Amino acid sequence: MDLHGGNIYKLKRDSGIDVLDYSSNINPLGVPNSFRKAVIENFESLEKYPDIDYTELRVAIANYNNCSIENVVVGNGATEVLFLYMKAIECKKILIVAPTFAEYERAARAGGKDVTFFPLNKDFSLNEDKLLEFITDEDVVVICNPNNPTGKFQDLEKIKKIADFLEKKNKKLFIDEAFIEFIERWKDKTAFSLKNKNIFILRALTKFFALPGVRLGYGLTYDKIILNRIKNIREPWSVNGIAEIAGKTMLLDTSYIHETENWIKKEKIWFYEELRKFENIEVTPTETNFVLVKLLNDNAKSFRKKMIENGILVRDASNFMFLDESYIRLAIKDRKKNERVLEALRRVLR
Amino acid sequence: MDLHGGNIYKLKRDSGIDVLDYSSNINPLGVPNSFRKAVIENFESLEKYPDIDYTELRVAIANYNNCSIENVVVGNGATEVLFLYMKAIECKKILIVAPTFAEYERAARAGGKDVTFFPLNKDFSLNEDKLLEFITDEDVVVICNPNNPTGKFQDLEKIKKIADFLEKKNKKLFIDEAFIEFIERWKDKTAFSLKNKNIFILRALTKFFALPGVRLGYGLTYDKIILNRIKNIREPWSVNGIAEIAGKTMLLDTSYIHETENWIKKEKIWFYEELRKFENIEVTPTETNFVLVKLLNDNAKSFRKKMIENGILVRDASNFMFLDESYIRLAIKDRKKNERVLEALRRVLR
Repeated sequence: MDLHGGNIYKLKRDSGIDVLDYSSNINPLGVPNSFRKAVIENFESLEKYPDIDYTELRVAIANYNNCSIENVVVGNGATEVLFLYMKAIECKKILIVAPTFAEYERAARAGGKDVTFFPLNKDFSLNEDKLLEFITDEDVVVICNPNNPTGKFQDLEKIKKIADFLEKKNKKLFIDEAFIEFIERWKDKTAFSLKNKNIFILRALTKFFALPGVRLGYGLTYDKIILNRIKNIREPWSVNGIAEIAGKTMLLDTSYIHETENWIKKEKIWFYEELRKFENIEVTPTETNFVLVKLLNDNAKSFRKKMIENGILVRDASNFMFLDESYIRLAIKDRKKNERVLEALRRVLR
Repeated sequence: MDLHGGNIYKLKRDSGIDVLDYSSNINPLGVPNSFRKAVIENFESLEKYPDIDYTELRVAIANYNNCSIENVVVGNGATEVLFLYMKAIECKKILIVAPTFAEYERAARAGGKDVTFFPLNKDFSLNEDKLLEFITDEDVVVICNPNNPTGKFQDLEKIKKIADFLEKKNKKLFIDEAFIEFIERWKDKTAFSLKNKNIFILRALTKFFALPGVRLGYGLTYDKIILNRIKNIREPWSVNGIAEIAGKTMLLDTSYIHETENWIKKEKIWFYEELRKFENIEVTPTETNFVLVKLLNDNAKSFRKKMIENGILVRDASNFMFLDESYIRLAIKDRKKNERVLEALRRVLR
């Protein structure tokens, strides 16, 4: 099994099978046309090195997030920003709220940090009082919000309580908001709006703008010390010229943004309700564009195999910390594709 | 002054001046049409994550270099491969043959290594016997070949002597061949053809294929241990989808390759001979697409300023180790642009 979802390439190499990829959570509206047009018009810019300061790109991101360019750091995908943060912070131990995305642990260890995990409740809600009691010598708390793979979102009040507590103790809060734009009125709900100096927000253009191939992530923070440290250790020109064009174009594409918001609002509820009709699975209520499913009569490995035979690649979620082999994760895509998945489920879960 | 050449963005922001960039060494033929066509045809591939193993891309690079896919590691520009190598090797001290590209030192220090420098001769030739005597506790020797900023190329015999000596002492040789494709019959001259297990070759598609914005570099080696270590520490999906398309397309574009070879063969000699006609500069004979120039009656800073006023950005080379403020570096581009540079030089050097 793969560490990550979405390895359709290996599947195709090993078995020759072409499948519908429900293991990675990408906007089904696909690459925005505004971006395609901008790439064709600006092709020659690839003949130059990118701006080593990424000034125009950071201005675009700052405008999108109502902040100053000084608060923005860009990276080669969210991955690079995450790894840079974990290298840049001076601390010994990280606490990760889990189950969650596996790269936080990998990045923390690559940065020479020890890692402990705080478990979510059985229904994947977060007991913040217990979390605050749990913290001892950890200097950074990592929360993915909305959380991958559970789809749960922690509200701003709860995040504020945690951030304020940590700030008093001189500790930091790292929040991965890679999926927050799939949530209605997310600009009122982002932890960045709290303006705490100990908060660092991770974002990506990967998911919402359907561009995992372009590699563009960014960090937002009012923490000047960490911004400076990251600046000192980063490798030059890590963000490619196409990603620069993407950031400068797509964040302004309000019609694509609205179309995506309309799609997810409708489809999230519909797909969840349809999934709930199956008797031998348990579906976690989701607030974003994927859904965690517990298999009541099967295990993830055998279920994944059966789904591939029915043309669908699902994410075996059993390797997420604190999840067992009964969990799988499904993306949410457009109605036609979601119906194909339900069709396959009807055959496999029969 | 900038650490790197080519910061035309900062120049434009600070002064509003648009200049001809002779500070970075990019193929003036520009982005290959084959690549432009492939990007437009494969735009939707950006909606997927890149293949985490980069199998097809590595096959293309392996075919180009007559080796197996197992010997190829890819990176987000040559920069990432360099930083990964310097992190992956287990050693305390690196020896860098200088003057040369500044990133080797930065990468070595980022990987926790100490650095010493071995100076080239006054005419920038390499005395390999002296080099071998000089080595004490350094475990890796770094040579840029052809060398940036001197334009000198060390022949295969000399490199073999160094590699064999180091191999006997259980030491390694790191060779940056980012500019080797500008040398005639380079496939007979690359250190990779020696097949020593202690050699690691760094390459980039940046220079020869005029795509610094795309970010695609690679490493070649028969050293399985280092390949495995790099695999374990690398961040996932660091090479973007456009770079994947570039590698798979351009390495097969023989007509672009031949056109470039014809251009550099002719222009390198012509531009060098024209530069030699100036009395108050000394020109280092070059074997690649840039040339190091010593100013006899001016310093780099004031000369650079005067050249900008004449519409040309040159590289102030005074911050290269062992070079003083009398050195600047010029790219070699097409005839028309080279003539514009000569025109400016006639005014500035008068």
